[in-house]
Amino acid sequence: MDPEAEAKHTGTAARLQARRGEITGSNTGIATGVYCNLVVVPQEFAADFRQPCLRNPVCLPLLEQTDPGARKSKLAAGSDISTDIPRYNNYQDGKLHSAGVSNITAQWSDEHVGFLLGCSFTFEIGLAAADPRLTARNMAEGKAPPVYVTSVQLNPSGVFTGACMVVSMRWYRKDDIPRVRAVTARFSRQHGEPVAWGWEGAEYLGVADRLKAKAVDFGEWVEPVDGEVPVFWGCGVTGEIALRAAKIPGVSMTHYSGTMFVTDLTAEEVENRGPRLEPLSPAITEDARDNGLA
Amino acid sequence: MDPEAEAKHTGTAARLQARRGEITGSNTGIATGVYCNLVVVPQEFAADFRQPCLRNPVCLPLLEQTDPGARKSKLAAGSDISTDIPRYNNYQDGKLHSAGVSNITAQWSDEHVGFLLGCSFTFEIGLAAADPRLTARNMAEGKAPPVYVTSVQLNPSGVFTGACMVVSMRWYRKDDIPRVRAVTARFSRQHGEPVAWGWEGAEYLGVADRLKAKAVDFGEWVEPVDGEVPVFWGCGVTGEIALRAAKIPGVSMTHYSGTMFVTDLTAEEVENRGPRLEPLSPAITEDARDNGLA
Repeated sequence: MDPEAEAKHTGTAARLQARRGEITGSNTGIATGVYCNLVVVPQEFAADFRQPCLRNPVCLPLLEQTDPGARKSKLAAGSDISTDIPRYNNYQDGKLHSAGVSNITAQWSDEHVGFLLGCSFTFEIGLAAADPRLTARNMAEGKAPPVYVTSVQLNPSGVFTGACMVVSMRWYRKDDIPRVRAVTARFSRQHGEPVAWGWEGAEYLGVADRLKAKAVDFGEWVEPVDGEVPVFWGCGVTGEIALRAAKIPGVSMTHYSGTMFVTDLTAEEVENRGPRLEPLSPAITEDARDNGLA
Repeated sequence: MDPEAEAKHTGTAARLQARRGEITGSNTGIATGVYCNLVVVPQEFAADFRQPCLRNPVCLPLLEQTDPGARKSKLAAGSDISTDIPRYNNYQDGKLHSAGVSNITAQWSDEHVGFLLGCSFTFEIGLAAADPRLTARNMAEGKAPPVYVTSVQLNPSGVFTGACMVVSMRWYRKDDIPRVRAVTARFSRQHGEPVAWGWEGAEYLGVADRLKAKAVDFGEWVEPVDGEVPVFWGCGVTGEIALRAAKIPGVSMTHYSGTMFVTDLTAEEVENRGPRLEPLSPAITEDARDNGLA
């Protein structure tokens, strides 16, 4: 591989492409770094938004919470979260104000806090690496996967009450599901293994009708091949749905479904490098480890 | 309060009472230490059981995983987890073998690993302390609360697939629910705030019929007072239901619903003293904190 082609596969390259407006659609498969969903809320709601993440880690796996006003991610050198995602959504008082905008620099005030959450695009790379036959068809086609709002309620928290889990869907042969589960289970901070599978799973989640109609709530439709069944994973778009349900006042922002922030870390580094979730307290002491809590 | 009466309120006293067989029913309200659910599995399934805890922290808030064969909790000085709970259940190949036995010392082999999980008995003390009017009636009557197996599926993990969330129920006036939510939200490692409330919540969880029939799946029936509605919290009995669904081979054990292990720590110490969940890696380094992952 020539140096330029290889450079495209770093997180830095993926971020620069987005910053320059060279990518405006789904960026699945273009880089090997960990992909992230983004939710930005006014500082006064940051503590509130943290709780649904801790209570619903399959949908909302919290990787980083930025300092108020900071637009740089500690997971990505030289990054600007407000420009380095291909497209964004803006919310005003919980209502969608503008969809698919190229940056949110002007909206990101000193009073805003960003949340970066794991993303299934990260394990799509793992599936392709484990066996090219397991490559998600949406990734092979450069598409965002079909994404659905289910009827399964999140564990509520504070103002974030009444929202339902969002899932991404990929087609697999029934025989392949055990391997697909095993591969994605290793990506515990990237939604991990599926939450449901098969047509029974689709019925349970309340999305079978939309699936049969070839409709999507977010993302892009992908056609199944004979005999394939749907497999569903938790999806970070849940954060956007939770924002809408909570109707929090002021300006909030998210990435635009299917266009993600890419970090400099590999999934393995994220899995091995720290606790599952950020600690509440500033310091994790030897004492805490000794008593079995750490 | 005289010294002896006060001594009964320590975790040590509660454990000794159970060890000596002086308490065989629900031990809610007898001590101020953090209460725990118990699940013990053969060592070969320990990694498997850890995952549903991490994926379903509202039902299965992991506080401690013991070393293989160790019957001592690091959260309780001088403890023996196999004797210090009033009653236990024994499972053989996923089937209930003996229910309500006084100890599991003989069954706990060098190949067994124990999991201690947060418990709603801990926040019952918090509710009573916040306002005596909010005292859970079951606690006032020395009863375990009514416990129900819902139709809401857990996020599956490995062999622990197909199990549903279990909830404990307490009656409250509608007007009191916001305060009840706010008080219990502070007990994030003791199931936190409710997962559902009101008769609509009961319908959503699939437990309304059993509630109207004054039936319980576990625990004890508690009569509502005019105008009260049910409020539901995640419940650690979920671990026992997950064991049954997984039908794991060999001997597994749990506490008997409503009779709990009591630690030496206060809820506040648990909340403030470490990360939400145990880390995967043995050491949490400065490096991990610096990159925003810790």
